[in-house]
Amino acid sequence: MVSGITVHPIEFTGAGPGDPGLLTLAALRALEQADIVLHDSLVAPAILALAGPQARLIDVGKRGFGRSTPQQDINRLLVEHANRGARVVRLKAGDPTIFARLDEELTACEAAGIPWNITPGITAAAAAAASLGQSQTQRGRNRSLRYLTGHDAEGLAEHDWAMLARPGAVAALYMGKTAARFVQGRLLMHGAGPEIPVSVIENASCLDERILATTLAALPETLAAARMDGPALIWLGLAPRAVRAEQKRKESA
Amino acid sequence: MVSGITVHPIEFTGAGPGDPGLLTLAALRALEQADIVLHDSLVAPAILALAGPQARLIDVGKRGFGRSTPQQDINRLLVEHANRGARVVRLKAGDPTIFARLDEELTACEAAGIPWNITPGITAAAAAAASLGQSQTQRGRNRSLRYLTGHDAEGLAEHDWAMLARPGAVAALYMGKTAARFVQGRLLMHGAGPEIPVSVIENASCLDERILATTLAALPETLAAARMDGPALIWLGLAPRAVRAEQKRKESA
Repeated sequence: MVSGITVHPIEFTGAGPGDPGLLTLAALRALEQADIVLHDSLVAPAILALAGPQARLIDVGKRGFGRSTPQQDINRLLVEHANRGARVVRLKAGDPTIFARLDEELTACEAAGIPWNITPGITAAAAAAASLGQSQTQRGRNRSLRYLTGHDAEGLAEHDWAMLARPGAVAALYMGKTAARFVQGRLLMHGAGPEIPVSVIENASCLDERILATTLAALPETLAAARMDGPALIWLGLAPRAVRAEQKRKESA
Repeated sequence: MVSGITVHPIEFTGAGPGDPGLLTLAALRALEQADIVLHDSLVAPAILALAGPQARLIDVGKRGFGRSTPQQDINRLLVEHANRGARVVRLKAGDPTIFARLDEELTACEAAGIPWNITPGITAAAAAAASLGQSQTQRGRNRSLRYLTGHDAEGLAEHDWAMLARPGAVAALYMGKTAARFVQGRLLMHGAGPEIPVSVIENASCLDERILATTLAALPETLAAARMDGPALIWLGLAPRAVRAEQKRKESA
């Protein structure tokens, strides 16, 4: 740390699922005051546009599994800019505490003696459930909910499939497009009904949001036919609420 | 429906965990435009104060399990005000799709032919994790996360304790204060380590937020000694990040 320079806490901030309306007031304030915004590639341009004119935006990648900037370089950028006295916002898609590898960046800050704050964001699963018109929990159906990743450092991620295969289980699968066939196979093997509802929500909350209502049996084929480019969230055990679907059709008619 | 009156969609809106800074921009806009705000008792006065001067605020209760207004009366109020042409916001603490009995209210709207929208909010678990300085998921620790309720319509809620008792399991317990001894007993019975970290976060994100770092073994005694009045979120498997705790102490020194 250079003496005489005020080091501001690094603001680890959730950008939410994509719709700028789902940004928090705190995130907006942080963007307006930022000198440096280190952001994931997934963060929408309409959100980045909310940063103040003084802000320098740096895309550090992280699209799906890929990553254009190695984690060490992200860590180094955080530390360097903070030590120069810049107000640094680390803007992560969704919520920075869910499948966002936050800890590695916090550890780097701490090793350099730089303070930090975390501002949570709306995670994709919450936005996707709202778009479906479905509660993530429901009396008589599920008194717990689960967020799972389709992939981890080892590849396709294992989970407690027997519990997830039970009737009424509700779980959001992140990074699930390429894991869908694996997840389907595991769930069927553990006794899940082929007819259980599955919803795929691409670009949840955004203007180009797309909802596919399918079943566990048809999930891989539905995904293959849909040719999705955007990030997708898969809700296992939730179907779009019928009336909501009806409204959406009317609006777009 | 009275002819000649425009019926606006009812806005089911998340108020977030308490800090007005964690309100979404969309929620703020809905409050500013509302004629009627039907809100949970838990919603903070600082958030209600963001409603426009024309707005009539109606407290419909729902504090913990109790409820000052029966569900049918809430449903009736929603429908009546919407049918009179009012812009109605149904403001729920946290996220309206998590442990909020949203479905019953949507069904009432649909029965009356009233359209609706859902705006997600930051749920207490996300705010509490941010305050702990912990990710809700972490490579090598947990590739899934769980939100559980301590209580459901039948009383103390049963869950798949064997999975929750496994090393590295991470789960947020909602409405857990009175269920804590029960949950502790079930987890220990299923082999959970008495020393696993447990964090209790009262009034997450608010100025009077309080964090208690404890263990599964000491959880009931910690809660009894703390005499909490506010809503508390219990994170099973997460301890406050040490450095963050250090910062907080410095700030309050």
